[in-house]
Amino acid sequence: MFNPFFSNLGPFSITDICDELEIENNKFEETNIEDIKDLTTASIKNITFFHSKKYQEFAKTTKASFCITDKSLKDYLPKTCTPLVVANVLIATSKITKKFYPKSLEDEFDNSVINIEKSDFNKNVKYGKNVLLGKNVKIGENCLIGHNSIIEGNVNVGNNCKIGSNTIIRNSIIKNNVSILDNCVIGKKGFGFFPNKDKNLRYPHIGIVIINENCEIGCGSTIDRGSMSNTEIGKNTFLDNQIHIAHNVKIGENTIIAGQVGIAGSSIIGSNVKIGGQAGISGHLKIGNNVEIAGGSGVIKSIPDNSKVMGYPAKNIREFLRENK
Amino acid sequence: MFNPFFSNLGPFSITDICDELEIENNKFEETNIEDIKDLTTASIKNITFFHSKKYQEFAKTTKASFCITDKSLKDYLPKTCTPLVVANVLIATSKITKKFYPKSLEDEFDNSVINIEKSDFNKNVKYGKNVLLGKNVKIGENCLIGHNSIIEGNVNVGNNCKIGSNTIIRNSIIKNNVSILDNCVIGKKGFGFFPNKDKNLRYPHIGIVIINENCEIGCGSTIDRGSMSNTEIGKNTFLDNQIHIAHNVKIGENTIIAGQVGIAGSSIIGSNVKIGGQAGISGHLKIGNNVEIAGGSGVIKSIPDNSKVMGYPAKNIREFLRENK
Amino acid sequence: MFNPFFSNLGPFSITDICDELEIENNKFEETNIEDIKDLTTASIKNITFFHSKKYQEFAKTTKASFCITDKSLKDYLPKTCTPLVVANVLIATSKITKKFYPKSLEDEFDNSVINIEKSDFNKNVKYGKNVLLGKNVKIGENCLIGHNSIIEGNVNVGNNCKIGSNTIIRNSIIKNNVSILDNCVIGKKGFGFFPNKDKNLRYPHIGIVIINENCEIGCGSTIDRGSMSNTEIGKNTFLDNQIHIAHNVKIGENTIIAGQVGIAGSSIIGSNVKIGGQAGISGHLKIGNNVEIAGGSGVIKSIPDNSKVMGYPAKNIREFLRENK
Repeated sequence: MFNPFFSNLGPFSITDICDELEIENNKFEETNIEDIKDLTTASIKNITFFHSKKYQEFAKTTKASFCITDKSLKDYLPKTCTPLVVANVLIATSKITKKFYPKSLEDEFDNSVINIEKSDFNKNVKYGKNVLLGKNVKIGENCLIGHNSIIEGNVNVGNNCKIGSNTIIRNSIIKNNVSILDNCVIGKKGFGFFPNKDKNLRYPHIGIVIINENCEIGCGSTIDRGSMSNTEIGKNTFLDNQIHIAHNVKIGENTIIAGQVGIAGSSIIGSNVKIGGQAGISGHLKIGNNVEIAGGSGVIKSIPDNSKVMGYPAKNIREFLRENK
Repeated sequence: MFNPFFSNLGPFSITDICDELEIENNKFEETNIEDIKDLTTASIKNITFFHSKKYQEFAKTTKASFCITDKSLKDYLPKTCTPLVVANVLIATSKITKKFYPKSLEDEFDNSVINIEKSDFNKNVKYGKNVLLGKNVKIGENCLIGHNSIIEGNVNVGNNCKIGSNTIIRNSIIKNNVSILDNCVIGKKGFGFFPNKDKNLRYPHIGIVIINENCEIGCGSTIDRGSMSNTEIGKNTFLDNQIHIAHNVKIGENTIIAGQVGIAGSSIIGSNVKIGGQAGISGHLKIGNNVEIAGGSGVIKSIPDNSKVMGYPAKNIREFLRENK
Repeated sequence: MFNPFFSNLGPFSITDICDELEIENNKFEETNIEDIKDLTTASIKNITFFHSKKYQEFAKTTKASFCITDKSLKDYLPKTCTPLVVANVLIATSKITKKFYPKSLEDEFDNSVINIEKSDFNKNVKYGKNVLLGKNVKIGENCLIGHNSIIEGNVNVGNNCKIGSNTIIRNSIIKNNVSILDNCVIGKKGFGFFPNKDKNLRYPHIGIVIINENCEIGCGSTIDRGSMSNTEIGKNTFLDNQIHIAHNVKIGENTIIAGQVGIAGSSIIGSNVKIGGQAGISGHLKIGNNVEIAGGSGVIKSIPDNSKVMGYPAKNIREFLRENK
């Protein structure tokens, strides 16, 4: 995962990590752990986590040296990966991610912003009234930023970008020629937490939002940043108004998404996809390339390339229309 | 109904009230009416209203001394409650509520706000640029308020609350440890009015919004205040982005509501409920505790405790999935 | 189409137009074309366009002297209308519309705005903090404009209008007694473009938004301006929160639209219509007068007057409820 923004406070010793998890460390050789990553991207110097049987294929081949998991899952791991057995894998993972990335947990508003007039960008950017910029912001050539918009910390904006008014962006990379219209919120933490009676527990969001070249994002849309991976929108993909893109979603290139669509967490949408207004896509699905999803559809399973679907639950469009004459 | 904000101009004499309704008052003993309340909460010193047969059970036991109603309904009332018979109960109720609570009808923007820098809260609150505060606002310890947010009149904010940027709050009580993210509008009057050719008539909204401890409200959400009762969200309930909660809705504790859900007026949602993205719940329903509503569902009737439902109209989830293989 | 805002740079000679389209002009008499209009409203001095067989009835009776069209469609045109045959009618139409109306293509934020305090309206309007006004703005008597709202260029506001806070309006005519609540975006260009690999092409939006007397528009709603015609909302029509009205939509009088409804481009909604929450209406449909559409419905074909529909796809409500007991 490309992530230039959240700084990693590691490495931490495996003893430190076991202490944090209240695991007695009497078996492990002392070693330094550099980062926490998911099962597929973790390297030998990393710790990973494994909380559900449905990831067993990834677990079998992980390269991580250590894995937070539970009793019922530990035997899927390869011999090269030492299980750290805990009662609740996600809560334990949250604790360790917070140890590496303490600033990724909460989204306090950026108190360090200054008016763009007082920044280094006051000459290169055409800006409206009351535009605020945080620290670690880069803005390319020939950009526009509308009134009352706030570019909080950790944002790179490319060349020829147009950002509307009343829009808030944080923890995001915006490539060249992107338009983000009015009243959007881009890059806040996702709606991910561990439900817990009386007080839910947040889990960290160390991912960012990446919006590639030539995209347009409509008014009032929200795009949340990823938890353990990035949320990413491919080149030349256009989103209409009032769209919600949840954390970890990946969308391909040349895709067109009409108004009020919602895409739940971690789903992957292909290229050249068309999604009609108010359609909803559940989490953790894979929508192929060249798929067409009719407006109002509710997609609850993955869809292969080149399909046209409609309905709730979405099915082949010809079948749906035949059944619903 | 707990309501510290809208001041009651009563009591009014029953003669005054009858004059307002153009009812000839030749039968009633002179008496003072202290307030207008609904059938179940009204006391002997109150006037109430009864406009639909479906409330007949409440009507039979009301303690109010007077009730605005129509010919077809008046005989359901107990002998202790004198009917004031009118042609249109809701329009008449609107007039009398306006008499008691004249400021509850319209939502003009709060022209009395000042920049927080000039307020008494400039030391205790960590605030962004251009934060505006109205009259009768209280803010607890250790709170954050982001840029361009407006806390209009009649708002109490507890301790450790985080309010995002570009958010507007009015007529609301926010308890401790609540997060309200960016671009929300909390506490405006609901979408309630009497349809009327050429010019619809507003009815008063004397309710407020109450958000209890540890809640989170996602970006771009709207929570309308109640008309004759409060809109209330229970402890540790989390709402994702772009959610709409209409007037008079009550939501229990530890409930989780995903993005773009809409809940229509006066529905009551239990505790430990999970509602998937884009689901819609019609008005005046009761959703029990521990209910799970799948994303995209359209709920048009009440749901008992511990049910799992899916579809439009929502039904038992196993039945729905069996029928929609 | 009534459009006082986008100035027409025409007339252009037919030779100029053919050059722009790379058509060899060896057959036409030299003549001046004053404007580009759709098939039904074009007059003898105009050019029009015809891109789909479904408009053949309009094509047969168009009064335009010239029409951008393709090989397969040109023979539907009357003898009085000379076809200009191109490979892609919409891209060609986009080019010519841009020639007449170059400012209609993009929506850069209005850089000419000033604070209302410094404008001529500082006495007649009751306004909040940080209100910005663009050029060519008119505001009637007794209006309110809330904090941080931006009335960009080309807006007429009537008398007794109430505009909330954080709302953005451009290219719109707002008649008397209209309320537009907080966080709305009114009058931006629609989600209309020619999909094109690597870089989609925008088409011009020379239409405006017209909101007639006594309307109310709820918080967080978006109403896009038209492309080749106006987006218009009839008298005394009320919209709840988070509604999306796409380009070219026309809505009649006394219509009531509940929260989170979406209406796709170019659909026409009658008068006295009721649309329940989260319903969606596909593009290019005609919904008659006195129609009731249940909440959550997905309307994919036109609906005659006086019908009640429900479901996805929406059908007769009694039939739907019978089938879904």
